[in-house]
Amino acid sequence: MKIKNENDLIEYLINNIQTKSKDITRTIGDDCAVLKISSKKSLVFTTDTSLEGPHFTKEYSPVDIGYKCLASNLSDIAAMGCRPRYFLMAITIPNLNSDWIKNFYKGIRELSKKHKLVLIGGDTNRGPLSISIQVIGENKKNILYRSGAKINDDIYVTGNIGLARASLIFSQKKMLVESKKFLKNLRHPIPRIDIGQAISEFASSCIDISDGLAKDLNIILQQSKQGALIEFEQIPSAPVIINKLDDKDLYEAVLGGGEDYELCFTANRRFRKKINYISDKFKTKITKIGMICGKKLIYTRKGRIIRPKIKGFDHFSN
Amino acid sequence: MKIKNENDLIEYLINNIQTKSKDITRTIGDDCAVLKISSKKSLVFTTDTSLEGPHFTKEYSPVDIGYKCLASNLSDIAAMGCRPRYFLMAITIPNLNSDWIKNFYKGIRELSKKHKLVLIGGDTNRGPLSISIQVIGENKKNILYRSGAKINDDIYVTGNIGLARASLIFSQKKMLVESKKFLKNLRHPIPRIDIGQAISEFASSCIDISDGLAKDLNIILQQSKQGALIEFEQIPSAPVIINKLDDKDLYEAVLGGGEDYELCFTANRRFRKKINYISDKFKTKITKIGMICGKKLIYTRKGRIIRPKIKGFDHFSN
Repeated sequence: MKIKNENDLIEYLINNIQTKSKDITRTIGDDCAVLKISSKKSLVFTTDTSLEGPHFTKEYSPVDIGYKCLASNLSDIAAMGCRPRYFLMAITIPNLNSDWIKNFYKGIRELSKKHKLVLIGGDTNRGPLSISIQVIGENKKNILYRSGAKINDDIYVTGNIGLARASLIFSQKKMLVESKKFLKNLRHPIPRIDIGQAISEFASSCIDISDGLAKDLNIILQQSKQGALIEFEQIPSAPVIINKLDDKDLYEAVLGGGEDYELCFTANRRFRKKINYISDKFKTKITKIGMICGKKLIYTRKGRIIRPKIKGFDHFSN
Repeated sequence: MKIKNENDLIEYLINNIQTKSKDITRTIGDDCAVLKISSKKSLVFTTDTSLEGPHFTKEYSPVDIGYKCLASNLSDIAAMGCRPRYFLMAITIPNLNSDWIKNFYKGIRELSKKHKLVLIGGDTNRGPLSISIQVIGENKKNILYRSGAKINDDIYVTGNIGLARASLIFSQKKMLVESKKFLKNLRHPIPRIDIGQAISEFASSCIDISDGLAKDLNIILQQSKQGALIEFEQIPSAPVIINKLDDKDLYEAVLGGGEDYELCFTANRRFRKKINYISDKFKTKITKIGMICGKKLIYTRKGRIIRPKIKGFDHFSN
């Protein structure tokens, strides 16, 4: 077997390394691993590495880098409907610049304080900048998986979609005013921890859309063995994105997206009122964008079926 | 406060980030963090990054790299007297070379199979080679800490000491036959998992000596607020190291050391028989090298006090 991309690697690992055990209810290939520690309580584990290039650029301040590294990990915990509790950090830095380090940890602290996280371990090395964080969370009630979507469930997203990617697209087009407008979405995403826990009582599936709405929704559909109908106009974005980008770039921003760190989840329609209440409580938009039905993922726009072409993202095929 | 080395960084973190919580019985600054999950059971967590340069060189085969990355993490679990159960891997690699990857995981598998470890998660990115592993372990009986050494306790080490470092010293001296003799100790260290668990019933303190016997024993003494008397001749090494290195290099290899991944532990003398039994059972030398006494760390050799000068190791001051 030739390993050509991340999916091949995951397949290779599943076939060649022990990845299953009876107390591990979710293992490699999911957002988080799940370890059952009692009849009601589980711990969830996730790890993510952030590097200059794919995850941040030289334009990011050390505060932004610290913040975003932790945010991307917390988003995986949010997608499981869990509460993050502890974290470990293995950081590799070119040199010990006190100012840089203090600012980097200022970004970390903004999130760790907000969510009462405890730093319990780590490792520090000298080398090209690279930050690996591991977060340990615990379930509040149920744990949310990608595989539970049921026919006729509503499909929701939190927040506005495509803003982080639009900032990059506007920047490439030298539309710097527009790009700057969404820079905060790119560099300072808000992991939806509170909402993840609130919907964990009733949602049938959930994923964070850090790899883009189309790709991540497709994972829910594949794992749940369902199809979906999405009304493109219902996907909340920003007027300037909808008005100033041509269709190709608009689909790329909203559906290709990535780096949004919003949640996409499904729930039976009897929870609509509850979802409105959660949206009000956490002052965060939660929008119904379609429903689970059929066998495929179908998008409509202005009453017509559209077939947007979107580039995928794989660290090894770009 | 200016952050000049790893200790400064740890101090900065303890003062500026939440690192304590009532269910966390050991936190940042120890080999592993300890999370109490019931009256008898705890989970321990450790993370280590391995990089080309400080941890392996271009001469290492991918099998060696995989093996050693996991071994160094497992050694931290061994030092706590715990059993490793699960691991996560965040790897950054320059490209997806199938052969390299398969050989790398062959090294990983050698250890994961032996210790029945389960790979439960990870992350893969493209960039300069860097491997961050997190291992989750659980206690068998007691958890071993660095802080429990008591006056009159015996001090022991497992295996032979200084072999990994001697391989490097011989290589620098172009004594290639001698260097090659200990290459296996450098590239293929054996984490003392079984012995760590066996001594967890009675040892008063334990540490792995991956940073060198002198430095790591000093940590036990500092944290236990004790001194020690070490008979240099009692420290088991190899004849060629003792015979062919001058005193400066000999002390550097045996006391400065590093990369040995043996355990140094303390125990009341009433456990001597038990320790012999454990040594026989696991076919591993366990040698008494001195005792806990006084306020300082004192070395003797041929009945005289020696004051070996050893270079320390800090990733940021070399």
